[in-house]
Amino acid sequence: MDFTLALPDWTTDEIKALPDVFHSVEERMSVVIKFSRLNYVRGTGGPFAAGVFERDTGRLVAIGVNRVMSHNCSSAHAEIMALSLAQKVLGTYDLGGPGMPTHQIVVNWLPCAMCFGALMWSGVKSLVIAGSDHRLESITGFDEGPITPIWREELQKRGIELIDNVLTESAIEVYEDFARSGSIVYNARQG
Amino acid sequence: MDFTLALPDWTTDEIKALPDVFHSVEERMSVVIKFSRLNYVRGTGGPFAAGVFERDTGRLVAIGVNRVMSHNCSSAHAEIMALSLAQKVLGTYDLGGPGMPTHQIVVNWLPCAMCFGALMWSGVKSLVIAGSDHRLESITGFDEGPITPIWREELQKRGIELIDNVLTESAIEVYEDFARSGSIVYNARQG
Repeated sequence: MDFTLALPDWTTDEIKALPDVFHSVEERMSVVIKFSRLNYVRGTGGPFAAGVFERDTGRLVAIGVNRVMSHNCSSAHAEIMALSLAQKVLGTYDLGGPGMPTHQIVVNWLPCAMCFGALMWSGVKSLVIAGSDHRLESITGFDEGPITPIWREELQKRGIELIDNVLTESAIEVYEDFARSGSIVYNARQG
Repeated sequence: MDFTLALPDWTTDEIKALPDVFHSVEERMSVVIKFSRLNYVRGTGGPFAAGVFERDTGRLVAIGVNRVMSHNCSSAHAEIMALSLAQKVLGTYDLGGPGMPTHQIVVNWLPCAMCFGALMWSGVKSLVIAGSDHRLESITGFDEGPITPIWREELQKRGIELIDNVLTESAIEVYEDFARSGSIVYNARQG
């Protein structure tokens, strides 16, 4: 018994066209937001994307998009896709292991309860998000779940830096366009 | 780009030998605990297993074991394996969708922060655990992460029943044997 989760076909050309390195966190967020928009516009998943980068060089290791509906898998969120692909590419379950460069995950909003746990186990040492308030949920209707109220402290305690509010308005614009598009918010059990 | 997560080879014969239905929650927990032990003894992962059952008939839909180290994937926890395989078998990302029987996940301890989120998104309506106190962490050294302190209320709010303390001592025995075996607790970033 096994299961396979894959990026949609359109990502192949899009990824090929990307530069190898993204110097600023804004450049990194910009590509993540672009993929979040393409994902729902192409009908391959919800408006969510995540990228794993080497924090200090800006090299892109892997990018992921939401694949819940396409793969009939409620865990196929963008962060799980990006982290698992990055770990496969690098051949390790620990992106923060000895001798590794510092890895950063860039996401187009605060991760849901599941993905917040997933990033902690992944070994990334930096989290960059477009925002963390209730606008994602109120605009799109997605349920983000019961993340611990002291999530900022939990990151800090584990040595994971947080960079919040990067390109917030661009991220919000995708959520607003998604809501207006009438795309399916698959259901209240999934974020 | 894709990644595949699979059950270990030994599970094929073990699953074939199982009855189709498990009437009591104790019978269900018993097979989960057996798989948790086999998984570390066979060297295919940490001492964690999970089963998805039809709650009312007791039919086993899918079983999962921890595959983090074997697959270089920090998200390959037993619950993610079991839920994803159950969703693949049933062809739906929502185990609680219209027309579905009520699904139950049975796990050999309170799920970690990531898997607690994952079960909420999966559509299961019942969670059966062997225990929920700090003994798992104190015996094995695994970090279970920052689950919301009001996790019981969050389950209830979402219509997910909780059955706690099923075969607690048998589950603890596996953790104690695991700890004594000198097996790797891969690291503090993973649960």
